[in-house]
Amino acid sequence: MSIIALLTDFGLRDPYVSQMKGVILSINENAKIVDITHEVEKFNVKAGAFILYLAAKFFPKKTIYVAVVDPGVGSERKALLVDAGGDFFIGPDNGVLMLAAKEKNIKAVYQILNPKYFRKEVSSTFHGRDIFAPVAAYLSLGVSPKEFGEQITEYEVPSFIEAKVEKNKILCEILYIDSFFWKHNN
Amino acid sequence: MSIIALLTDFGLRDPYVSQMKGVILSINENAKIVDITHEVEKFNVKAGAFILYLAAKFFPKKTIYVAVVDPGVGSERKALLVDAGGDFFIGPDNGVLMLAAKEKNIKAVYQILNPKYFRKEVSSTFHGRDIFAPVAAYLSLGVSPKEFGEQITEYEVPSFIEAKVEKNKILCEILYIDSFFWKHNN
Amino acid sequence: MSIIALLTDFGLRDPYVSQMKGVILSINENAKIVDITHEVEKFNVKAGAFILYLAAKFFPKKTIYVAVVDPGVGSERKALLVDAGGDFFIGPDNGVLMLAAKEKNIKAVYQILNPKYFRKEVSSTFHGRDIFAPVAAYLSLGVSPKEFGEQITEYEVPSFIEAKVEKNKILCEILYIDSFFWKHNN
Repeated sequence: MSIIALLTDFGLRDPYVSQMKGVILSINENAKIVDITHEVEKFNVKAGAFILYLAAKFFPKKTIYVAVVDPGVGSERKALLVDAGGDFFIGPDNGVLMLAAKEKNIKAVYQILNPKYFRKEVSSTFHGRDIFAPVAAYLSLGVSPKEFGEQITEYEVPSFIEAKVEKNKILCEILYIDSFFWKHNN
Repeated sequence: MSIIALLTDFGLRDPYVSQMKGVILSINENAKIVDITHEVEKFNVKAGAFILYLAAKFFPKKTIYVAVVDPGVGSERKALLVDAGGDFFIGPDNGVLMLAAKEKNIKAVYQILNPKYFRKEVSSTFHGRDIFAPVAAYLSLGVSPKEFGEQITEYEVPSFIEAKVEKNKILCEILYIDSFFWKHNN
Repeated sequence: MSIIALLTDFGLRDPYVSQMKGVILSINENAKIVDITHEVEKFNVKAGAFILYLAAKFFPKKTIYVAVVDPGVGSERKALLVDAGGDFFIGPDNGVLMLAAKEKNIKAVYQILNPKYFRKEVSSTFHGRDIFAPVAAYLSLGVSPKEFGEQITEYEVPSFIEAKVEKNKILCEILYIDSFFWKHNN
C-alpha cells in the first residue's frame, strides 16, 4: 500500500484538494492519501519547501509526496518527479520539492513529459489535478519513474540568505512562523 | 471498497464532522471517507451545490456523496437519496445535491423514510449524523437504494439567475468566489 | 483494522499533525487515522476534553483516541494510557482524556513510561509526535497496554463549576461555543 502525501497552498474551502484526491482514487482506489497541509501561504514556495522538509522526516519509506505551491503554473517551468532512493517527490520545478528531497538523497530527477499519464485535458492553471495527481497515482501503481519523462540535471533549488549572528541581533530570513509562536508571544 | 465523500458547512473546529465519520465507521469499518470540504459558507445551499458539482466531476464511479448544507433541518423538508447511475447523492431536499447529480444523470430519486437505517435517536438538528451518515454507510455495505424509502418525482432544484452580458457589464449571480481570486485581486 | 482518532490544538497549517500521522504510519502502515479536530483553542484543556467526549460517543468500539492539548509538555506531568474497556485514550495527564474515558468506563489507567515504544529522540515540546503517536501505533498493532508502563490510580480529572439556575439568569462555566451559535446569533 502506497502513501501519497499532499501539500498545497489551496486551502480547504475550495474544491481543489478534493479534485486531486478524486483523480488519484480514480486511478488507484487503494491509494492511502495523507494531508500534510493545504494551508501554505499562497505562492510562498520557500514556506512550502520548509514544511514539506519538516513533515517528510517522519513519513515511512516509499512515500510519494506531491507538493503544489506553484505560482508559475502555465508558464515554462518544468514539472518534476524526484526519485530520492525509495521516496518520490512530485511537483513544479521551483524549489518546493528540493529541501525535503535533498535530505533524503536525490537519486534522479525527471522532467515529467509523458501525457499518457496526464488527465486528458490539462488545464493551464491546475497541474496539481491534471498532471501531478495522476502521475503520483500511476507511480503508486508501480509505473517506473523513467516512464514519466526524461532525466535532467538542472533544476531549481531554493536559496536562502545565510543567517548572521551579530552582537545584539541576528540577521536572517524567516521562512515560516508556526501557530504556537503567536500563542506564546501575545 | 466504497468511497464516501463528505461536504458540509460544519467547519473543522466543532465535533460534528468527526461524529459523522464515527457513525459511518461504526456501520462500515472499511468505508473510505474522503472530505470534499467542510468550509461551505453556513447555510449557503447554492455554494454547496456548486462545490459538490465541481468536486464530483473528478471522483471515481460508485462514489457515495453526502452533502449537508441544511438550513431547513428539523422542518418538513425531505431527506433524499439520489441514484445517479452508479453514483449516489445523499442529503436534504433543498437543491444541494442536484447540480452534481444532474451532471451524472439522475436515474431515480428516493425520499429517505426507513428508520431501520437511522441512528436510534434522531436529533432534530443533526440529520447529517443521524440519518445521512448511517444511510450512506448502509448503502456502502450494499443495501439496495429502494430499501431506504420510496421513489419520488418532485424535489428541489437550485435555480439561478441567467447571466446577461451587456455592453460594459455582466449581470449575473455569484455562487462562489475561490481563495485564489483574493490572492490575485489584492 | 484499528482506528486511531486524533484531537489536538495544533491547527492544520503547521507540519505537526502530519508528523504525528507519519510516525503512526511508519509503525503501522495499516492504521486508519481519523481526525476529530485540530482546531481546539490552544492550551484549552477543558474545551479539548469536551470535544473529545462529544466525538467519542459516536466512534466504533476499540478506537484508540490520541488527544494532545498539552500546555504542560516538558514539565513533570505524566503521560497516560487509559484502558476504557475496549477503547483506549492516550495523552497528557491534565484531564483532557477523562471526560470521554469516564463515559466509556475506565478499566485501568497506565502511566506511559517504557521508552521502547517512544521515538528514539524525544523532544521536550512535542510528546504528541514522540510518545503519544508511537504508543498509539504500537497499541494498534496489538501490544498489551501493560507493556507501556505501570498502572496508577491518581490522575487529573477536569473539574467544572456546577451550573446555578437563578431567577433571571444562569451562572455556569462555558466550555465551548460552536460555530453554529455565531451563525444563529449574528
